[in-house]
Amino acid sequence: MKRNSSPNVEATVRALSLGDVRRCARLISLVERGEADLVPLLQRLYRAGGRGRTVGVTGPPGAGKSTLVNKLVAVWRRRGLSVAVLAIDPSSPFSGGAILGDRLRMMEHACDDGVFIRSMASRGHLGGLAKAAGDALIVLNAMPWDIVLIETVGVGQNETEIMRHAQVVILVQTPMGGDNIQAAKAGIIEIADIFVVNKSDHPLADQTVRQLEEMVSLGNCVHPDRTWLQPVVKTQATNGDGVGALVDQVERRYAHLAAHPEVLRLQDRERARHRIGEIFQDLLNQRMHSNDEGWLDDLIDSVVARESDPYALARTLLARL
Amino acid sequence: MKRNSSPNVEATVRALSLGDVRRCARLISLVERGEADLVPLLQRLYRAGGRGRTVGVTGPPGAGKSTLVNKLVAVWRRRGLSVAVLAIDPSSPFSGGAILGDRLRMMEHACDDGVFIRSMASRGHLGGLAKAAGDALIVLNAMPWDIVLIETVGVGQNETEIMRHAQVVILVQTPMGGDNIQAAKAGIIEIADIFVVNKSDHPLADQTVRQLEEMVSLGNCVHPDRTWLQPVVKTQATNGDGVGALVDQVERRYAHLAAHPEVLRLQDRERARHRIGEIFQDLLNQRMHSNDEGWLDDLIDSVVARESDPYALARTLLARL
Repeated sequence: MKRNSSPNVEATVRALSLGDVRRCARLISLVERGEADLVPLLQRLYRAGGRGRTVGVTGPPGAGKSTLVNKLVAVWRRRGLSVAVLAIDPSSPFSGGAILGDRLRMMEHACDDGVFIRSMASRGHLGGLAKAAGDALIVLNAMPWDIVLIETVGVGQNETEIMRHAQVVILVQTPMGGDNIQAAKAGIIEIADIFVVNKSDHPLADQTVRQLEEMVSLGNCVHPDRTWLQPVVKTQATNGDGVGALVDQVERRYAHLAAHPEVLRLQDRERARHRIGEIFQDLLNQRMHSNDEGWLDDLIDSVVARESDPYALARTLLARL
Repeated sequence: MKRNSSPNVEATVRALSLGDVRRCARLISLVERGEADLVPLLQRLYRAGGRGRTVGVTGPPGAGKSTLVNKLVAVWRRRGLSVAVLAIDPSSPFSGGAILGDRLRMMEHACDDGVFIRSMASRGHLGGLAKAAGDALIVLNAMPWDIVLIETVGVGQNETEIMRHAQVVILVQTPMGGDNIQAAKAGIIEIADIFVVNKSDHPLADQTVRQLEEMVSLGNCVHPDRTWLQPVVKTQATNGDGVGALVDQVERRYAHLAAHPEVLRLQDRERARHRIGEIFQDLLNQRMHSNDEGWLDDLIDSVVARESDPYALARTLLARL
């Protein structure tokens, strides 16, 4: 039975479209908890929203991402744009202090109505965080924010998954030469549209810029959009140097996409495909775990006893779907 | 139609059971490339094998894992056991040199018939690496190795997935106090059976040991086996200090499992479940990507145009399975 949009759904959609920040924050908390009955609302929000831009910022720990994001927000604000920040924090039970510190730095924008800042933590549910982040982005994109910025700490698979939700991805590096570039694992480096070398006052900054530029010009890091060579921007987030130039590069990327509708189309399709895959996976996990009949445990025991094997059982499960 | 074991499959199973190292190496190369028609062979190898022990070693970059693995191999060899090492390397296109350096250190065992060392790289296929590593473990476990050691570099989700294939997991930390423990994200810390603080000559080594011991005793890091408190071992891999004690702790863990058959049973079942899930996922991906009819692209375009939404399409796909 298909559920019709309840009056409550319509009221929420309207409230968000008018910029109701409290309702937005409450809804993201529900999304974070993974409430299943939010789906009808998220469907309506998705269909109604998506006019703002979604920009991703990622990079290894210690690259100065939070400070940079803070300054990016300031530049966008000066240019008259409103900004929502969704910061996805790593799942360490010990990093509470660091996260708090990061967030405190953002307090600079605390009294500005044109800025919304929200953290989400994985709390060990690595698999589901990317999906939850995607749900939260749908909520933020249903609001009238000009820019929705999504920030992830780290360069793991999970961060890469999350960055695939962004239209433009900024990869921040610290000036540490080859070792640092090494930290940017394959996967993330391939989806970055713009490279940033932060801490431009560091003696190795120029060398790192050169290495990245060479990597791009030698084609060692092929962007899915073959019409785009990734620019390398040098910033010093602590005093804001280069952050204006970085925002200009984000603008340039959007202009490039507008001028290449076939690239934009492919990219939009790829993002949708990724998003659908995540939700599909989640539905599948729910269905698999809703089996309480115990027949699965018996089959698993036969694999443990090596009377059967995992390939045979995986095939059986697929056939039963 | 079910495929019967061909004579070739039977010959390979027999050759591996007798310790044919060349065939083993060749087969792992095929597994790495993801050849689909290996499944009948892997099924037979799984059912015939699994008598050796599978030990996992992981930890953040720079913790000295490779040197420690090298010394672990030496201790096991002195105790008369044969060892195969499967080293899963990160996927950076720039880390070739570092990997080579790591492997060169292992050359110490190059002329020893009782040692087999093999690297596997993800080459950007993050999702599939854990499954490929699982396939390679089935090959290694079909050989007469006493110990199969699987080593991963890094502490991301992918590494955690791979560590779930091991019976006993060793998490290596460098002595850097709180920051270092922070690097061990939730997920991996929960599946570690033994903690190692390497570089025991470091001034912060004892402090890190204490922090880990406190974390364990305060129950801040709950092991799935409630009958086990994770020991913390201090090592100096460069000169071998503490490595014998670490091997003793691995033995102690196996003895503990033997004395607690209900724990062993749960753990075996959990490993099998994880493995089956991986293969299931792989089969599902194959099935999804074998659709070349273009109907999916049309549906995705309707999501991009916001005439549909990703939740609706994910449900449609699940219903079509």
